[in-house]
Amino acid sequence: MDIKEYYIRQIAKTNKKNYENYIVTRLLALLDDTAVKFITQQAVRATDSNKRFLIDLYFPQIDLHIEIDEGHHKGQKTEDVAREADIVRATSHDIRRIDATKDLKGIHDQIHMALLEIMKRIKNKKDFMPWDIEKEFDPEFYIKKGYIDLADKVAFRKKADACSCFGKRYKALQPGATKHPSEKDTILWFPKLYENDAWDNTISDDEKTIFERKKNDEGGSVDRDIVGLTGKHIFVFAHAKDSLGATLYRFKGVFQMDVEETRKAGQCVYTRIATRVKTYIPKE
Amino acid sequence: MDIKEYYIRQIAKTNKKNYENYIVTRLLALLDDTAVKFITQQAVRATDSNKRFLIDLYFPQIDLHIEIDEGHHKGQKTEDVAREADIVRATSHDIRRIDATKDLKGIHDQIHMALLEIMKRIKNKKDFMPWDIEKEFDPEFYIKKGYIDLADKVAFRKKADACSCFGKRYKALQPGATKHPSEKDTILWFPKLYENDAWDNTISDDEKTIFERKKNDEGGSVDRDIVGLTGKHIFVFAHAKDSLGATLYRFKGVFQMDVEETRKAGQCVYTRIATRVKTYIPKE
Repeated sequence: MDIKEYYIRQIAKTNKKNYENYIVTRLLALLDDTAVKFITQQAVRATDSNKRFLIDLYFPQIDLHIEIDEGHHKGQKTEDVAREADIVRATSHDIRRIDATKDLKGIHDQIHMALLEIMKRIKNKKDFMPWDIEKEFDPEFYIKKGYIDLADKVAFRKKADACSCFGKRYKALQPGATKHPSEKDTILWFPKLYENDAWDNTISDDEKTIFERKKNDEGGSVDRDIVGLTGKHIFVFAHAKDSLGATLYRFKGVFQMDVEETRKAGQCVYTRIATRVKTYIPKE
Repeated sequence: MDIKEYYIRQIAKTNKKNYENYIVTRLLALLDDTAVKFITQQAVRATDSNKRFLIDLYFPQIDLHIEIDEGHHKGQKTEDVAREADIVRATSHDIRRIDATKDLKGIHDQIHMALLEIMKRIKNKKDFMPWDIEKEFDPEFYIKKGYIDLADKVAFRKKADACSCFGKRYKALQPGATKHPSEKDTILWFPKLYENDAWDNTISDDEKTIFERKKNDEGGSVDRDIVGLTGKHIFVFAHAKDSLGATLYRFKGVFQMDVEETRKAGQCVYTRIATRVKTYIPKE
């Protein structure tokens, strides 16, 4: 998808809501910067509960959400969040509200203030990385960079692309996990961190703990997992659907099995032990 | 309707067309001037034929039309024009095209060029009148001004408002015509210049000639009209529906019956004899 299609499809999501459409398009036009990524109707997990909801406009590089209050039909948005949505946590993010019930000048003034906030955040962010839709999901970019960091909100379109960051070029990959091609005792894992046909997995609100439960398990699999996974480093790339419905695998950090908790819970429990991993130039 | 509702409703008309919505909203945001009136999907009569079509974006103060070429489903727009639409003639107007099949930068560049054109036209127009939605249809504005001129594209929401410009305050008016309250041998006429239940009226492409034909006329009415209307000045305020579907009466100039043509055609024929009329302060 090129940037034109991205813009059009993201804005198309606002089309049925007149105020949202007007405010989002005006804000983007006045911002006038294709190096700033935006997502409309971003799925968000609340800080204080497991509640999920959609925020009208999200700027992932600067952790800013903009919510347009039209003064009616609230609450509907919660149920619209897909199970497999690429959910961001609202912790440490700011939500700025634009009151669409004000008059036109009042709306324009609020958009202006939101713009100033966006520009201030870009300026203040030391490591602001300009958005480039062409290389956003490109393993080459991260291989050159030398690392993948949780703070950079890294994702890949395919499991093979994620794996290709670690010293071997992959064309396609079917399994849900594979060995790291360059580091010993290290696994690349592509879990669905939501309930699905075979699994009932979750990630904690702070995204530091993963709980994995196989459905219809006749027992014994947890013991086998303990044998196989104890001490291993597990790079997690969680399966999700992005805001336009396309699959992605989002880097969630390095996890390790918490053997004690796993035994206690009777299901696999993993704890995050690192937020940055090294990348490797592929051996040709 | 306030300006906020106007903006939202005009832009809502573009909502189903993603490129049109993106381009119109970006152009308006960057123009950022509520003194410039815009109309989306303006009904236009072609210069060289009686064909009517819709133009995506129209700036009436500066006679500029902007058409967004999406490269598909053309021609549909013609049939969508309502019979009673407030149609403008494209003569002396310019149509600027924006090719939406270009890439995002190419679209932005074209919007930028359109903006420069708009600003140049506003600057070059000696008598540019800032748009004010509150007084746009207000007879007081034209009473103070001292005249109503065709070039100013004047319209009123009610027949009573049009009549109130001429020396007497009207609250409501039912008939399709009434006497000018201050000028002798002068009539204020509110015709439907399109085929309707009782009449089959038309106005010529250059809007200088009106043809009036009563349907199911058993004869004789034309002769009576000749007796009653010969030599009279007829101020024409044509009934139409604006781009949001609201009724308006659009000033079309001063007409006089062309008695010779009327006899020849067997239907009333009127010729435009002036484009400006004097307004009067109402006698209390």
